[in-house]
Amino acid sequence: MDVQLKLDGAWFDATNAKGAKIKLGAGLGDGVSPMEAVLMAAGGCSGIDIVSILEKMRQPLEGLEIIVSGQRREDYPKYFHSVFIKYILKGDLEAEKVERAIELSLAKYCSVTTGLKAKITYEYVIENGEG
Amino acid sequence: MDVQLKLDGAWFDATNAKGAKIKLGAGLGDGVSPMEAVLMAAGGCSGIDIVSILEKMRQPLEGLEIIVSGQRREDYPKYFHSVFIKYILKGDLEAEKVERAIELSLAKYCSVTTGLKAKITYEYVIENGEG
Repeated sequence: MDVQLKLDGAWFDATNAKGAKIKLGAGLGDGVSPMEAVLMAAGGCSGIDIVSILEKMRQPLEGLEIIVSGQRREDYPKYFHSVFIKYILKGDLEAEKVERAIELSLAKYCSVTTGLKAKITYEYVIENGEG
Repeated sequence: MDVQLKLDGAWFDATNAKGAKIKLGAGLGDGVSPMEAVLMAAGGCSGIDIVSILEKMRQPLEGLEIIVSGQRREDYPKYFHSVFIKYILKGDLEAEKVERAIELSLAKYCSVTTGLKAKITYEYVIENGEG
């Protein structure tokens, strides 16, 4: 898997093999910082897994929001030593299956979170409009 | 540092604190996959460092392109076990200083690459239009 980046003023235009782009910078302007992109990738990766796993479990997921928070080391290198993920799921879902889906993602399927040195913790909320 | 993601059809809209967004998906459409976003973050992070370090070294950097390639594990979890970064720098630059800037970034300053389990390797090319 390859991506390309090109410096454009204070920003890098990053492009994948199909031409989809994101704009990365030091976080002072209207783009995304690389460390924010890591948290976004962690949430997206785990979110994609959970959608897929709950579908296989025939759980009627109606919405999913994810908040990802990272805590950085105080000294260099200042990578995330811990990442906390909050999942807010909508639908008439079984808590046990939701928890199983999250655990499967974070322990096995999510290639972003499993590839980080950070300790990953999570919580989840199920919002059932019908309840 | 916090980011938020929201499922929208087959995609996640990921948003930082200032409202800048990227669109993440499983890689089948016109967005960026989470694993591509990790490589982009790695390149952007290191690129930002190198621009800054070369500036402090008073090296006249005129352009920077970065290609980042990741090799994934064959079994789950399929995170990147190695990442290769190619830097293509433009300008009348001293190779020794360029190499020092890259080494400083990858060993100390780049919070993305240092936070990955992957082994990071690199090469660089200096293209001097005046040469």
